Amino acid sequence: MATTDNEHLVQSEDPDHPANLIPRLCRQFYTLGWVTGTGGGTSIRKDEHIYIAPSGVQKELIKSENMFVLSWPTPKYPPEARKYIRKPQDLKPSACTPLFLAAFERGALCSIHTHSQWAVLVTLLVEKLHGKDACFEISNIEQIKGIPKGPGKGMLGFHDTLRIPIIENTPFEEDLTEWLEKAMEQYPDTYAVLVRRHGIYVWGDTPAKAKTQCESLDYLFQLAVEMHRLGLPWM
Amino acid sequence: MATTDNEHLVQSEDPDHPANLIPRLCRQFYTLGWVTGTGGGTSIRKDEHIYIAPSGVQKELIKSENMFVLSWPTPKYPPEARKYIRKPQDLKPSACTPLFLAAFERGALCSIHTHSQWAVLVTLLVEKLHGKDACFEISNIEQIKGIPKGPGKGMLGFHDTLRIPIIENTPFEEDLTEWLEKAMEQYPDTYAVLVRRHGIYVWGDTPAKAKTQCESLDYLFQLAVEMHRLGLPWM
Amino acid sequence: MATTDNEHLVQSEDPDHPANLIPRLCRQFYTLGWVTGTGGGTSIRKDEHIYIAPSGVQKELIKSENMFVLSWPTPKYPPEARKYIRKPQDLKPSACTPLFLAAFERGALCSIHTHSQWAVLVTLLVEKLHGKDACFEISNIEQIKGIPKGPGKGMLGFHDTLRIPIIENTPFEEDLTEWLEKAMEQYPDTYAVLVRRHGIYVWGDTPAKAKTQCESLDYLFQLAVEMHRLGLPWM
Amino acid sequence: MATTDNEHLVQSEDPDHPANLIPRLCRQFYTLGWVTGTGGGTSIRKDEHIYIAPSGVQKELIKSENMFVLSWPTPKYPPEARKYIRKPQDLKPSACTPLFLAAFERGALCSIHTHSQWAVLVTLLVEKLHGKDACFEISNIEQIKGIPKGPGKGMLGFHDTLRIPIIENTPFEEDLTEWLEKAMEQYPDTYAVLVRRHGIYVWGDTPAKAKTQCESLDYLFQLAVEMHRLGLPWM
Repeated sequence: MATTDNEHLVQSEDPDHPANLIPRLCRQFYTLGWVTGTGGGTSIRKDEHIYIAPSGVQKELIKSENMFVLSWPTPKYPPEARKYIRKPQDLKPSACTPLFLAAFERGALCSIHTHSQWAVLVTLLVEKLHGKDACFEISNIEQIKGIPKGPGKGMLGFHDTLRIPIIENTPFEEDLTEWLEKAMEQYPDTYAVLVRRHGIYVWGDTPAKAKTQCESLDYLFQLAVEMHRLGLPWM
Repeated sequence: MATTDNEHLVQSEDPDHPANLIPRLCRQFYTLGWVTGTGGGTSIRKDEHIYIAPSGVQKELIKSENMFVLSWPTPKYPPEARKYIRKPQDLKPSACTPLFLAAFERGALCSIHTHSQWAVLVTLLVEKLHGKDACFEISNIEQIKGIPKGPGKGMLGFHDTLRIPIIENTPFEEDLTEWLEKAMEQYPDTYAVLVRRHGIYVWGDTPAKAKTQCESLDYLFQLAVEMHRLGLPWM
Repeated sequence: MATTDNEHLVQSEDPDHPANLIPRLCRQFYTLGWVTGTGGGTSIRKDEHIYIAPSGVQKELIKSENMFVLSWPTPKYPPEARKYIRKPQDLKPSACTPLFLAAFERGALCSIHTHSQWAVLVTLLVEKLHGKDACFEISNIEQIKGIPKGPGKGMLGFHDTLRIPIIENTPFEEDLTEWLEKAMEQYPDTYAVLVRRHGIYVWGDTPAKAKTQCESLDYLFQLAVEMHRLGLPWM
Repeated sequence: MATTDNEHLVQSEDPDHPANLIPRLCRQFYTLGWVTGTGGGTSIRKDEHIYIAPSGVQKELIKSENMFVLSWPTPKYPPEARKYIRKPQDLKPSACTPLFLAAFERGALCSIHTHSQWAVLVTLLVEKLHGKDACFEISNIEQIKGIPKGPGKGMLGFHDTLRIPIIENTPFEEDLTEWLEKAMEQYPDTYAVLVRRHGIYVWGDTPAKAKTQCESLDYLFQLAVEMHRLGLPWM
């Protein structure tokens, strides 16, 4: 199959080339407990190419040659219409693909999906405290300043309220796309969407921003759970 | 002793050869706190050979040359009947051996035993909440999809209920075998059995599947304990 | 710009040279969860030079060539008056700069800022238990002996009370300087100031002391949170 | 000073030589949070030599050449009477020295001191639940089997009760020796003594046994704290 060629797309000596950076990020996320048991995923856009880690593999062992590459732009649906220019044999494309593409359509250059337990617990606590329609809200914590106010709007301030929308999980990951996009429309400034009982999607204007925003959010979710346990309010 | 020879069985340049993979997995499990203090163990079947990490050693320091090798198939009992074709001097075979063999008899290619504290806590919480005959049950958590529905049946879905049987601990690890096998018969679809106040046995159709299923289960046990603390039900 | 030269200031084969030590400390602090998401910072004075990690970068990836270097002594304010003798292009000086300088003015040779969650939780618990004017107090814990009694006064004893002042956070990090200095005056023996909902500033007579004091304090904050959860008093 | 010579005592290519093993163990213990902020220590006896890590240094950075070496046997008191045959310049001997020697006098070949928070919390919980004279007791947990029943008596069984005595802390570490030895006499089978609000001393018949017993105990202390939080009794 022609699409399994294009080895040159995943061969680079630049440690920040997507084919090298995605494996490095996945190893780091594994250590943080975000992508345990093959869960989660990462995708980076570089010029006219989208690089995506494969589905169902041990994330800490991913190599450059395991990358799927799509030609950008590419249709989100149906899967057969996606313009793969590199498909590693014996590997399956990530079920997160259309969700990552939704972020790229909004200008992101990197999109990360984790199963962080802090994210999952926060979705459950918000539901218990405020119901299914509530988003996660926190303010007056310094780490909030690690999250943008919105595209082109600078970073949130200490007294601003960080709001992350929460969507319900669906049996098939692909089916989340519709709800993810609705949340993106309803919260046009957000760079992340929580998925109840599942995890989180985070994206960024650059790979470094997506990764550090993911870290700042996870820090805030962990802190929020600990605060709740200690009877300390989030707002 | 003839059985101490066969050095070639544990010498390979393939990082995924059992004699290399078991030490690597043990180091990883040590870091996760699963095999601290010489606890736990790992075994892999490759064709007509069973590789087993030795008993009572520091798991993060295990080397290829420390591996015991059995000829497969081999009797589970009595220990003297087991067909060792490699026995490292000064090391003792793992007390988990018959339990690992029980998994291999059911088609597994890898079996892992950990003393994960989350597994132990879950066995205690289930007993407290539902009594000694109850199994661990959880549903509607994305990570459940990392566990098979049963041999040849695909993976569990988000709305499915994951059930892991729990057996009582015995003073001698070998004596668990009978109860492990009863649980395997009672729960023919399970790939894991919890041992109350002790830990868990997990197996898989491949070493990678055994390891990632072990990770997904541990994720779920940790999440379940945290959910319980926050007053969030598992079902 | 002349100030981007002076490459020799950040080139040394000595692993304890500030240009090498700051990146190593930042990697270590990242692993401890203290500087996640570009938060936190570190600065070292060596003779007539102040080395400072840049703002807004991934702390685990900082390299020697990313260091800002100031000529010491240097004015804290206004920023334009600070005597930079090395400014890496495309990087911004740390917003912690005047806070670090305040510690250097009091004789410190190293100053560390972390967003440790234990520090943040302790500031919230103290406020809840004792009000906004209270400092953090703990006694009769061995690790207290890792903290100095005050400049030139030796280390705290087991029965001594460790007191760490807490200041309120401000929207702009630089604006903390005034409050940090007031706390330094009010608590002339302290080597650390907590910042509510933000983190901590710790300094020391040497880089090693600043780092180990930061570790001892974080140990005590974590222990204090766990003690509070278990109904065990701090005094 | 003659005692600073004897470089050959700390130069060996054997990774398990005390001069290499102590630094490796200290790095490992640092990662586990047991010797943060220069706390804790480790000592190994090899034939007629006692190797001891120095006082007040960053434990993850200790090198072979930092080792103190005593000629064995040696008096515990007064400090001046101890027969140092190697004293690194600019370093201080560990305040744990007489406590380590007390273990060596009882046949141990390795003694470890940690400030593990789980150990500290257990000493506080035991006092709260059962008073100052109570020891820590737990039974029916598999990991108990990692602890010896007593010298020459084999390992504890699953249904046995593990008992670890607890002594009160003293302002000067050396002054603990008297109480440590009283606890050793009162509990002649123990391989460990907890120190309230401080940490634990663990020793073993070999360095590997001391280290794995220390791990098993810490596992049990952590589990005990978590069980207490979940309302699960230790006995």
